Parts: sequence; C-alpha cells; structure tokens
Amino acid sequence: MSDSVIAVDWGTSSFRAYLLDAAGGILERREAAGGILRVRGGDFAAALLAEVGDWLKQAPDALVIMSGMIGSRQGWREIPYVDCPAALSDIAGGLERVDWGEGEAWIVPGLLDESRPDQPDVMRGEETQVLGALAQMPAGGGLVCLPGTHSKWVTVENGAIQGFATYMTGEVYDLLQGHSILGRLMTKGAVNAGRWFLEGVGLAQEGGLLNRLFTARSRVLAGDLPEDEVRSYLSGLLIGDELASTVGAGESAVFLLGAPALTVLYEAALGKLGKTAVTLETDAVAAGLFALAQHLRKGGS
Amino acid sequence: MSDSVIAVDWGTSSFRAYLLDAAGGILERREAAGGILRVRGGDFAAALLAEVGDWLKQAPDALVIMSGMIGSRQGWREIPYVDCPAALSDIAGGLERVDWGEGEAWIVPGLLDESRPDQPDVMRGEETQVLGALAQMPAGGGLVCLPGTHSKWVTVENGAIQGFATYMTGEVYDLLQGHSILGRLMTKGAVNAGRWFLEGVGLAQEGGLLNRLFTARSRVLAGDLPEDEVRSYLSGLLIGDELASTVGAGESAVFLLGAPALTVLYEAALGKLGKTAVTLETDAVAAGLFALAQHLRKGGS
Repeated sequence: MSDSVIAVDWGTSSFRAYLLDAAGGILERREAAGGILRVRGGDFAAALLAEVGDWLKQAPDALVIMSGMIGSRQGWREIPYVDCPAALSDIAGGLERVDWGEGEAWIVPGLLDESRPDQPDVMRGEETQVLGALAQMPAGGGLVCLPGTHSKWVTVENGAIQGFATYMTGEVYDLLQGHSILGRLMTKGAVNAGRWFLEGVGLAQEGGLLNRLFTARSRVLAGDLPEDEVRSYLSGLLIGDELASTVGAGESAVFLLGAPALTVLYEAALGKLGKTAVTLETDAVAAGLFALAQHLRKGGS
Repeated sequence: MSDSVIAVDWGTSSFRAYLLDAAGGILERREAAGGILRVRGGDFAAALLAEVGDWLKQAPDALVIMSGMIGSRQGWREIPYVDCPAALSDIAGGLERVDWGEGEAWIVPGLLDESRPDQPDVMRGEETQVLGALAQMPAGGGLVCLPGTHSKWVTVENGAIQGFATYMTGEVYDLLQGHSILGRLMTKGAVNAGRWFLEGVGLAQEGGLLNRLFTARSRVLAGDLPEDEVRSYLSGLLIGDELASTVGAGESAVFLLGAPALTVLYEAALGKLGKTAVTLETDAVAAGLFALAQHLRKGGS
C-alpha cells in the first residue's frame, strides 16, 4: 500500500488521525484524548507510535504529516510561523521533517498575520483545515469561521489565506460557567438555538457586552428568563458579540467549519442577522494534510 | 450623645461602619472583613453587636442604619426593591426595621430599574452612596460611575435616581487573571494608567472585545507588548469597552465614586476619550445613610 498518508491533527487536548489511500480517500480514522499536554515526558515519538503503529505496519511507506499545536513550543518541535498571505505552496514551504526512527514524518507550520500592527494573530492547525476546505468554496474564496474555544475567522481569496482573527468566545463562556457569579445559574438545560439564544444574538448587536452578560442574572431575578435557558442566552450574547465585529453590516455569507454542535448555533445566529451560512464538511483537516503531502511528494519542499 | 447615627455599609465581602454625630459629622470609622457571607449561622445581630457594641454603649440612643447586601436574601432580611425613578423619600419609604434586642435598627432597600424590559437591573448599596454624593453634584444631576467588580452607571436627574446599568468589568478581569489562558501572562506588574492601559482603552472603542482580549497573547508572542504591561492592557480593553457603551459619543462629564485605585484608571480612560471626570469623595455612603436617618427621624417613614 504505497503512497498512503497518515494524517494527524494533534492539538492541545485532542488527537485525530486518518489513514488515507493514494488518492486521499479515508480508509480509517481514530480519535484519542491524547492532546499534546498529555504526552508523558514529551516523548511524542512514542505517543505517535502507540496511536498509529498498526497503520505503519500495514503501510510501511506511508508518509506521516501532522498539524496543530504539535508544532508549537509545547509540542514535538517548534516550527516557525509562515506569514500571511499564505497559499498551499507557502505553507508547504514551511513544513519541517522530524526524525523519529520510523518512516517519513512532517509537521505543518502555523500561520502569523501581522497585517494590522496592533492586532497580530497566530494559529496552528486551522490553516490546514481551511486548505482542505478550499475545494468546497467557490473560486477558492470566502470568509471562513471555525468556532471553538478560540474561534478563528479566516479570509480566503484566490486560494490563499489573506488574514485571520481569533475570538475567545468559547473560553469566556467556560469562564462564566465555571467561575463567575453567573455560574450558579448555568446548571440546567443544554445550549439550544431557540428563542433565548436568538434574543442574546440580537441584543449583542447593540454593544455593551459586559452589561448584557449581567442581565442574565437580573432577568432571572425579574422572573423573565427561565433558569434552564441561561446557558443559551449567554451563548447567544457571546456569539452575537463575535458576529457583530466579524460580519456586522458587511459580509453576507460565511463558511462554517467545525463540530456540528457549534456550527448549528452559528448557523442560527447568522440567520438571525440575515446572513447566509454554508456549513463545510468536517474532515477538511484530512484533505488539507493530504494536499500538503502531495506537494511534498511532487518535490515542492 | 443623642441623635447619633451608626451608619453601616454591609456588603457581600466587606463591612464598613461610621459613628456619626447629630449633624452627620464622622466621629469614628472602622472596616472589617466581615462581609455577609462570613457571618456564622446567619446571626447578623451578634455580628453587628460585635462590631459596634462599644459605640452603642457610648450612644445608647443611636439609630443604626444599614445598606448593601445585608438587605438581600443572603443577608439579615430580604427587603423588597424600590422602583426607579427613586428620590431620597422613595428610598426612605422602603426602609424596614429589624428587631434585634438593642436600639432602633433599619435596613435600606435596594433599587430595581425595569425601564428597559430586556435589560432590568438591580443594586443594593450603591443607591445610598449616590444619595450621599448628591450634594457634590450640580443641581443634583449627572451620570455617576461606581467602578468595581460589578460597575454601576447611575443616571441622576433632579435629585432622583432615574435608572442604572451594571457592568461585569471587574469580575471579567478577575476571571481572565485567575482562570484563562491569559492568566499565565498576568503575573507581573501592577495595573497602571500608562501607555498600554490607554492603548487598550482606545482599541476597545472599535468593538470586538472577544478578539481584542486574545491580542494580549499574540502581542506578547510578537514581542510587541511587554509581559509586565499585560494587566494594564487588558484592564484598558475592559474599561474601554464599558466606556464605549456608557459614554460613547454622548455624555461629556462623568462623576466617579469609588476606591481611588479604580477611579484613577477611569479618570485616565475618560480623559483619553475626551470626557471630563469628576471624582467624588468616598465617604458618600455615610452621608447617604445619615440623610435617610434624618428622614426617619422627621417621621417620613
């Protein structure tokens, strides 16, 4: 089974791997809780072998290619960021090989956007997902949102990543739930894209986030907001604030790339604001890693 | 020493008391860490006696009057909120007497602002501080900011509190420092009203708070923001966001009422935005409690 690829998306707290055939088709996939922070003694070679050793036996010539925080200072090796704008070939140019006593293994560089001096931004992993989703976007262009703990908003033109911005939306939600005065009101009901979520999205367009968050408490006290909808209301306020400064009065269409539990919320929020959301399929990272592997094999790096 | 007043500001985590003479002059003051959450078994009478029993011996006829969270469900007794707009006489009308086996003791009601149905708000304690500061404001009117864990913005006209809004500014700062990915960058240097604080205030006017907070990290990575200025930068972003929605393009003067360590930051931030800040003296709560006590003695309640 020559020309196979083992594609690995290795983040701070997650590990996803794909065994791909010579055409990029997914033969097998697996997930593990083995994020880089859980790797004992920093022995990433042993950790990788434990996860995909059986695939390497099946396909000894497979090329291993990894993206995400595995290329950060806390990962296997710190790979320098590539500057924006960055097309596939620019990112491939920053790939670095790691020697681990097994077959060929490479790590994808992250991206740095310094186009706005007071707002530099960095990412590791999302650039590969976006590369893999290009084929799903018209003429390789559009605004892509990757929701999460740190949501990324990526502008793509002519198949190249022009720039991006990070929003701490998911992390602030977790902080409120875990440690704030609002936490005691956030114990019932799962977040849903219903009335209270949409109310939060709408109110956030008026600004004043730090006040609006507090109204979750006063609206419960006033008997207005049901306690099992507090999570949805706060999620709506936070996602709404993110959207106010990303799409606002501008962009009319957004491509969503992420876990369905999140993209469904963003889809509803964008709909509330009169925008169009196109949800992309979520194995984009495998497609992105395969495209980079192809580039390597053609001798592009 | 007849007609004395023992004025108590009793919050969630703080206790401040004043012994006032018949003209409202401060004879003595004391502070304790005995916020309502620290009162063992909810025995507020015993806790109060422990704090001010010696004053009651000096002035057995003193009227005790208390404001703050002592009037909440977690306090001595839950006192119903008084609706806005509320003048001194309206707040005095909501005073409730507690029987504790000693002299006369009263608790001040909190205020409820339901003028905006989707943004109801409540406070307990700040209304009394504002009443006490009225004499320092021209014609009893103006916009008052009481910075803190939960900042309050209070609109006063004709000597009456017309409405108010709460901002979670201080609490969100504490969450970021204590529990977020930014926390590890917030270990050096005290918050100061210098260059990086003002930069944060300015950038916050453009919106996108959830993104701007993240730039603290990327600007440190980019070698732009010194690590010992991260606290000041984040404080500027948060206070700046609060100001964007409270003063914005409108109000030109703000009265500040609070701890000097905070009012000095708000003063600098308002200056950066071209607004005028007038810092009020901080024993306003004693003056407010004295005015309410006078109202009681004249038989107003």
